[in-house]
Amino acid sequence: MKQIPIGISARHIHLKPEHITRLFGEGYELTVLKDLSQPGQFAAGETVAVVGPKGRFDKVRILGPARNISQLEISRTDAFALGVNPPVRESGNIEGTPGIKIVGPKGEVELEEGVIVAARHIHFHTEDAKKWGIEDKQRLRVRVETDRPVIFEDVIARVSDQFALDMHIDTDEGNAAGLKTGDVGIIVD
Amino acid sequence: MKQIPIGISARHIHLKPEHITRLFGEGYELTVLKDLSQPGQFAAGETVAVVGPKGRFDKVRILGPARNISQLEISRTDAFALGVNPPVRESGNIEGTPGIKIVGPKGEVELEEGVIVAARHIHFHTEDAKKWGIEDKQRLRVRVETDRPVIFEDVIARVSDQFALDMHIDTDEGNAAGLKTGDVGIIVD
Repeated sequence: MKQIPIGISARHIHLKPEHITRLFGEGYELTVLKDLSQPGQFAAGETVAVVGPKGRFDKVRILGPARNISQLEISRTDAFALGVNPPVRESGNIEGTPGIKIVGPKGEVELEEGVIVAARHIHFHTEDAKKWGIEDKQRLRVRVETDRPVIFEDVIARVSDQFALDMHIDTDEGNAAGLKTGDVGIIVD
Repeated sequence: MKQIPIGISARHIHLKPEHITRLFGEGYELTVLKDLSQPGQFAAGETVAVVGPKGRFDKVRILGPARNISQLEISRTDAFALGVNPPVRESGNIEGTPGIKIVGPKGEVELEEGVIVAARHIHFHTEDAKKWGIEDKQRLRVRVETDRPVIFEDVIARVSDQFALDMHIDTDEGNAAGLKTGDVGIIVD
């Protein structure tokens, strides 16, 4: 049985170095609050505010380290609250997505694009993927047995020797399926 | 193909006559803002505030007509915001569920129980159910084809000649599956 631990991602933001500078000041380095399941990734001690046409969130967690693009990942529930209409996208694929205003302690950034609802996906270490015959980019179905059971379809496989086995869904998906971080899903095909 | 129209229920409250009186005053009658898909049911013009240990919602829509129990139906996202931990339940089955404070223009009610996350369900008119061989209380699986496709399992069939064909899910489920009211699901078994 192909059991996958599930992690539920709350809204968060990735920032490029230039934006960290504009939001936190010259030479600022993100601090590590907590390591995440993927090697080298961490929840930073720092948060920013994001401001949409209809609403704002004052404390959006930054995930580090800095990336080559800035990207805000929110749930659809969050999107309605902010008043933006982001598409469901894989991380990094931000062309044509909405922008948002980001406010830090030392300045602001008007992001021109980069707001997405993250597509559900599974990180596989190369060895896990090989063992189970799973290819990078393959679409999978994952069943969860809870008080609100669902089968998630179109779950994107991402395979790398830099990854640890973990399925990532957002808070809407977690709540809709009665899941919490650490629960387990089963790949059904 | 067994196609089912889907309705997404935002947080709402049902009230018993005694509570309408305490919240809105002696002899008060709910007004009809909009008829709902189920015959005789309506969104009332009136709203109340609900106040939990951690947060509050100021404008929770009342659905009419009055019922024999008062019941607040919220999403799990809402439950976290209020600071309550309701179970997933069928409407009307409120024994042992958390309570909540309800505030109206003329008074307050401390509900002792009645907060639920509604179990996903389909209303079938008796004729629809007969045609498709579906029994009251049967558990069904419903697939939706969207940019976030899922199969909802444990969807409860409710059959009555008072019902119109409609599947009811909450905002977490709708957002997790990329659905809006009026979209269609397919019963897969």
